Amino acid sequence: MRLIQVILFCFFSVACFAQVDDATVIRQIFDRALTDGKSYSWLEKLSTEIGARLSGSPGATAAVNWGLKELKVFSDSAWLQPVMVPRWVRGRAETARIITTKKQGRIKVNVCALGGSVATGPKGISGKVVEVKNFDELRTLGEANIRGKIVFFNRPMDPKRIREFSAYGAAVDQRGSGPSEAARYGAIGVVVRSMGLNLEDYPHTGSLRYSPDAPQIPAVAISTSHAELLSTSLKADKDLTFYFETSCETLPDVQSYNVIGEIKGSEYSDEIIVVSGHLDSWDLGQGAHDDGAGCVHAMEVLWLFKSLGIKPRRTIRAVLYMNEENGLRGGTEYARQAELKKENHIAAIESDRGGFTPRGFSMSTTQAVRDKIKSWKPLMEPYGLSDFDQEGGGADIGPLAAFGTPLIGFLPDSKRYFDYHHTTEDTFDKVSKRELEMGTASITALVFLIDKYGLK
Amino acid sequence: MRLIQVILFCFFSVACFAQVDDATVIRQIFDRALTDGKSYSWLEKLSTEIGARLSGSPGATAAVNWGLKELKVFSDSAWLQPVMVPRWVRGRAETARIITTKKQGRIKVNVCALGGSVATGPKGISGKVVEVKNFDELRTLGEANIRGKIVFFNRPMDPKRIREFSAYGAAVDQRGSGPSEAARYGAIGVVVRSMGLNLEDYPHTGSLRYSPDAPQIPAVAISTSHAELLSTSLKADKDLTFYFETSCETLPDVQSYNVIGEIKGSEYSDEIIVVSGHLDSWDLGQGAHDDGAGCVHAMEVLWLFKSLGIKPRRTIRAVLYMNEENGLRGGTEYARQAELKKENHIAAIESDRGGFTPRGFSMSTTQAVRDKIKSWKPLMEPYGLSDFDQEGGGADIGPLAAFGTPLIGFLPDSKRYFDYHHTTEDTFDKVSKRELEMGTASITALVFLIDKYGLK
Repeated sequence: MRLIQVILFCFFSVACFAQVDDATVIRQIFDRALTDGKSYSWLEKLSTEIGARLSGSPGATAAVNWGLKELKVFSDSAWLQPVMVPRWVRGRAETARIITTKKQGRIKVNVCALGGSVATGPKGISGKVVEVKNFDELRTLGEANIRGKIVFFNRPMDPKRIREFSAYGAAVDQRGSGPSEAARYGAIGVVVRSMGLNLEDYPHTGSLRYSPDAPQIPAVAISTSHAELLSTSLKADKDLTFYFETSCETLPDVQSYNVIGEIKGSEYSDEIIVVSGHLDSWDLGQGAHDDGAGCVHAMEVLWLFKSLGIKPRRTIRAVLYMNEENGLRGGTEYARQAELKKENHIAAIESDRGGFTPRGFSMSTTQAVRDKIKSWKPLMEPYGLSDFDQEGGGADIGPLAAFGTPLIGFLPDSKRYFDYHHTTEDTFDKVSKRELEMGTASITALVFLIDKYGLK
Repeated sequence: MRLIQVILFCFFSVACFAQVDDATVIRQIFDRALTDGKSYSWLEKLSTEIGARLSGSPGATAAVNWGLKELKVFSDSAWLQPVMVPRWVRGRAETARIITTKKQGRIKVNVCALGGSVATGPKGISGKVVEVKNFDELRTLGEANIRGKIVFFNRPMDPKRIREFSAYGAAVDQRGSGPSEAARYGAIGVVVRSMGLNLEDYPHTGSLRYSPDAPQIPAVAISTSHAELLSTSLKADKDLTFYFETSCETLPDVQSYNVIGEIKGSEYSDEIIVVSGHLDSWDLGQGAHDDGAGCVHAMEVLWLFKSLGIKPRRTIRAVLYMNEENGLRGGTEYARQAELKKENHIAAIESDRGGFTPRGFSMSTTQAVRDKIKSWKPLMEPYGLSDFDQEGGGADIGPLAAFGTPLIGFLPDSKRYFDYHHTTEDTFDKVSKRELEMGTASITALVFLIDKYGLK
């Protein structure tokens, strides 16, 4: 054997040994998560006992206390990071009606105020309806056709987009910017078709963003089936009136917290790997998939490390962010504190696409880091993870990008995500124990590899 | 350019053109399935209006009539293939109790008779309980410890097996052969832990197979949570008694049918591609995932070909088999008729793993055919299908293997499958429209490729 052969032989032996060893540890991670995992019972508690937890609400406070208490059990240290958050409240249940000029009369429809919306006041508002598919149509119609009316944005999420988040991304401008866009032309209110792929009876809430240069007008989401009804009714009776009443309100900011737990690294304790979800949820459901699942994923990464006796070389930090849904104050504050403390975040992972069956990880980073993570694909494929090509990280970890931190998003199957997203239907019974646990194990396996090898 | 280069250039141009063209057609298939697909509304009808349809039941008759009527709408021809099927009926709802020797007294537990079981008679049976994990333990205990008692098989499905069907396969001998195995040692009845991964309150039915050389004793499945309760109770009180009463019965065979529709091939009409599911279902739920989903998958393959104006070169035949659950008479008769008529089945596809998100296809065929199908993987991966390595076809198409027909099984994600399998919970509301439609399109895409290129 020539020297070069000996060297190569040794090199490949070590490489192969490392792979086998990693596969064994990853197998242990899955075994433990699938037999003794805590994520499902944690999520039951968070979803069914604490329930909805919009920023600043009593539910959010309860969730913060619960998260801290649980994290303390198996973290080296756990603490609260203060952050002031907005406090928007829905008030009384919304009412809405289509009032036709013909004999059918009044048809009750299901709506909910968009997060951040101003209220109509107790008398509600009513007006004729202008249906549009996009902002171009709005511009074409102009103030002459819009002033004094209610604008109805009715562009569906496109079911032909195979990636559901892409369909969401291509439709959600109506909800986010629609109210201000319509207000600029004198609209008195806005009705947005809910962001869902199916015909459903329940509306989907979510944030709007008022522009500083437009009047703030009330806005609601209408269920997809009632969006169809309204559209059909308009075709038959263009002079119909739409009425809706909302009593939502923005109260003063409230003190709240990101909840953090960590296991200190044994070798490079100043290199931090964040694994995270967001603790706040919309007020309508239980926030089971969005994003209770992400929180228990993150918590269980620490629990699995401790429970399996894996001592990380780097510091693993679970962060349960506050206020992803309507402000991103938690993610912003976390990054600000990281900068103040000159912390070195070598990777940030977020799970915010629900507790569904794992398919892979998205990334927002350099090609070199991407390639390194993709090189671990053979270790993940036996567990059904094969999608390592999508771009993306997560909203809460986004601000860390400014420091060059590689951002990684957990990618579960998302075919059912928008059936529940931001609705009364986002409840614990929609979560499959096994799907949730497979997600937990998948994220932990990735954290294990990043911790062991770094991302350089 | 040298001649060889010209030839290579032409070859690759044609190859690339074919790929692009195929990708376009497959895109059209998905677009149509995701926007105008019929599978979900068909499944709603089959599940909620017809409902349970065990072989020989009025529900099965209704399903046959419905399937034929629907297939006639868009097939070149549709017909019924007669087959005699067994008729087993559950009778009155089962009752079962743990009767402790201590003060707790009687604890009601949830059981259901296993398909094909004899009844206890109206007085029920009661006896002391011997808990075992497997047939080896049974042998070790021997007749001395078993005669006159009730054997309780309590080996759980192993959650550590990543492939749920593998966990099922490794546990289901208890249900299939357990009753006869126990009867050989003098047991008077059998209680089997339900085939499910979760702790649930509802039992899972499914077929047992009595051996000709053992007495036929009554057998029930107990819910997984009550299996745990019984096991715990036994540890505390080994002399407790178990009581159960069933009134199930096997009636004379009944005339029934496989339901078949086909589109005739334009070039090789004697080459048949079967795409199939089974129409019968257990009596407890609605048979939505098992296997209403497979039936509407198969039906929609024909509908999509017709609706998109794709004229197949080969004959595409949708088969809705009867009696997969407790006899396989439909699959057996179909193969027998195929042999009598000297039909040439070049491929048989079955969907019998539910209407979940598609992950790939399993195969039971030669390496050459397997490689050919795997060569199409790049066309399927954009839709999330990446698993083409598993062995397997489907129960109903199994008998076609004798003629060398390549068998192909549709592989959806199966993490939730055993939450519903053979239970009251297998209902339409557990089916995601989008997951179902993605499955339909995936199977149609594969049929399109097999039809276009053959499998030689």
